[in-house]
Amino acid sequence: MQTLWDHRYALRTESMSSSVIRELLKLTTDPEIISFAGGLPAPSVFPVEAFKKAAIRVLDERGSEALQYGTTEGHKPLRDWIVEYSAQFGININADNVMISSGSQQGLDLIGRVFINPGDCVLVEAPTYLGALQAWNAYQADYVSVESDEYGMKIDALEDAMRVGPKFIYLLPNFQNPTGRTMSLERRQQVVEIAQRYGVPIVEDDPYGRLRFEGEHLPSVLGLDSECTDLACKAPYGGNVIYLSTFSKILAPGLRLAWIIAPENVISMLVKAKQGADLNTARFTQMTTAEVCKDGFINKHVEVIRKVYRERRDTMLDCLDEHMPEGVKWNRPEGGLFLWVALPEHIDTTELLNEALKDKVAFIPGAPFFPGGGGHNNMRLNFSFSRPELINEGIARLGRVLKREL
Amino acid sequence: MQTLWDHRYALRTESMSSSVIRELLKLTTDPEIISFAGGLPAPSVFPVEAFKKAAIRVLDERGSEALQYGTTEGHKPLRDWIVEYSAQFGININADNVMISSGSQQGLDLIGRVFINPGDCVLVEAPTYLGALQAWNAYQADYVSVESDEYGMKIDALEDAMRVGPKFIYLLPNFQNPTGRTMSLERRQQVVEIAQRYGVPIVEDDPYGRLRFEGEHLPSVLGLDSECTDLACKAPYGGNVIYLSTFSKILAPGLRLAWIIAPENVISMLVKAKQGADLNTARFTQMTTAEVCKDGFINKHVEVIRKVYRERRDTMLDCLDEHMPEGVKWNRPEGGLFLWVALPEHIDTTELLNEALKDKVAFIPGAPFFPGGGGHNNMRLNFSFSRPELINEGIARLGRVLKREL
Repeated sequence: MQTLWDHRYALRTESMSSSVIRELLKLTTDPEIISFAGGLPAPSVFPVEAFKKAAIRVLDERGSEALQYGTTEGHKPLRDWIVEYSAQFGININADNVMISSGSQQGLDLIGRVFINPGDCVLVEAPTYLGALQAWNAYQADYVSVESDEYGMKIDALEDAMRVGPKFIYLLPNFQNPTGRTMSLERRQQVVEIAQRYGVPIVEDDPYGRLRFEGEHLPSVLGLDSECTDLACKAPYGGNVIYLSTFSKILAPGLRLAWIIAPENVISMLVKAKQGADLNTARFTQMTTAEVCKDGFINKHVEVIRKVYRERRDTMLDCLDEHMPEGVKWNRPEGGLFLWVALPEHIDTTELLNEALKDKVAFIPGAPFFPGGGGHNNMRLNFSFSRPELINEGIARLGRVLKREL
Repeated sequence: MQTLWDHRYALRTESMSSSVIRELLKLTTDPEIISFAGGLPAPSVFPVEAFKKAAIRVLDERGSEALQYGTTEGHKPLRDWIVEYSAQFGININADNVMISSGSQQGLDLIGRVFINPGDCVLVEAPTYLGALQAWNAYQADYVSVESDEYGMKIDALEDAMRVGPKFIYLLPNFQNPTGRTMSLERRQQVVEIAQRYGVPIVEDDPYGRLRFEGEHLPSVLGLDSECTDLACKAPYGGNVIYLSTFSKILAPGLRLAWIIAPENVISMLVKAKQGADLNTARFTQMTTAEVCKDGFINKHVEVIRKVYRERRDTMLDCLDEHMPEGVKWNRPEGGLFLWVALPEHIDTTELLNEALKDKVAFIPGAPFFPGGGGHNNMRLNFSFSRPELINEGIARLGRVLKREL
């Protein structure tokens, strides 16, 4: 269809190609396909009853308030809750350091809107989160990728990359998407030190930090920056880190609620950006979530999620042991939703996906997660969404495909 | 507080100044101020019980579906409802022409993202909606303003302005924000004809169209474009108009739910833009709204809203008659939320606002609605939010301020 809009697209749309994740998520609607492609939480862990009770209470007691416009920075009691919640991890902030966003994807978008000029370089891990690339492509960002291993960014490679003058560093230190890797404490400290030395701030994306199945919780980069900052600032924390987290993985993604922690002046600019983007996030879901979160619900609820996801991770690891042919390697994430598979060099996982779909099993190929190239023989597997028996059957199918192709 | 973020703001932030509306909305939290400044619906018309019943049903029957991620284009049954709803106004579209956005503000933002290059010119009415300017300022839009009267854009002025080569025309034909004016049928037809002649597409923003208190419903620009298009297109409608409407004014704004009607290929690009912006709009609120909207609820409910708002408009008109000194003029909107006041030329309403605040009454000065300058002696008054007795008292206060200043 030809319309007057056809030749009027903005230049930035050229870098807004449709997401591979999105195209692949469409596959999950075929009920015969066992999909390890998405990043969906297990619906069985959504606290539907608690949410229903909270929704009824909010509508009974403050219904017309809940259905009215709200403030752009977010519902104050929910921001207060985030201040308290952060304190248990040693993060000392106040409500002016917190804003609510419509999911972490909006947090990434607003950061792009406020900080990225066309051509600005963002320093990312290789591989890194696709959603961030998608958000920042709309602002015509460029990327410098830093080679990463099981402990996070390699420090030599990071120092090299700092010389290109990145606008900021983007990190997912806990159970990273796509790899499931966790950055070691030593690397976190080194990154903070290098960032301060070069004067480059950090965006820390932490959707999965609470979903640890084993080992010790590691301090956030936000927290480490506060401890070792050598800037003469009066902030309650270092201020060089913008920290993102979300209710999507500890409560439910259908609420589209996340939060951003940043210095007050950055929050104030992000709020202006959000005014233009969507005015405010739904007050009803914010009030209901504040009601659900009261009385330590989240800390109890993450235990439920951890138990379910640990079992699924273990099932997937056992199945991989049983069904993968020789030459296939994978990691053992200590938490989160994903694990990362490396196939022999001659395998291209994008081509392999077509074969896998014929056998009714799906994954995400590695290449899209590497903006600087690479990952052609990697795949991301999600273990949170499928029930154990489906994981078993799906990995068996994947094993058959691989044995045929290797 | 000094941080590493300080010198890293993107150029576009220079045009993202904080909204006057937002700063003024802060005033409404002082309970002693009677505010005609905001654009808030009356909370008394929110269908809290219907919404509660629907929310319980959705959570009981499809709870874990409602709390999961959804598709970017929006919940299909809600898009199907919009197709049906549009048909009653003679708009023949299918679900692929519809996407759900997180409020109409996001619709405006996504249009900016997809179509506006820095420096591109948008043709707007003078005055026009502030939220649109705020959305498109982030994309460094330029504006050409077309002088408007009680019937909408003046046609001579429009033809003149078309010669600057605008990217698109932005119109609010029904009970416009800020003036409450409605574009006449003849003007609508003329605008569509001129737009087609110059090859310039139209964005029609229609949040208030259903809130008509008197007179006949006028066909949308979207509908007129479909009738008189001379392009050889196979669309179910003309395709040169992107149409925005919202649940905020016919149901409740605390849901953050609106919709966009556009040609399929434009929808597809807007969906890509939304993927980067916030992935998807909350599924829970979409499913609950689809449940509320079943069985003709909206058509019955708009009657309730019309009755309440008509009474408030009439109260405000009576009070203006009673309390305004000579030399003050205002219009009589046939619907919507706002009316528009003109003071004598020597009065600057931005200065007047400071005086009015001392007397505990607020309005929005006219100037910010004119991107090309003008409106220094105008003010926008909202009549939907305040109860009649408060309208009475507030207009009496405003009358006293004006008598003092004139």
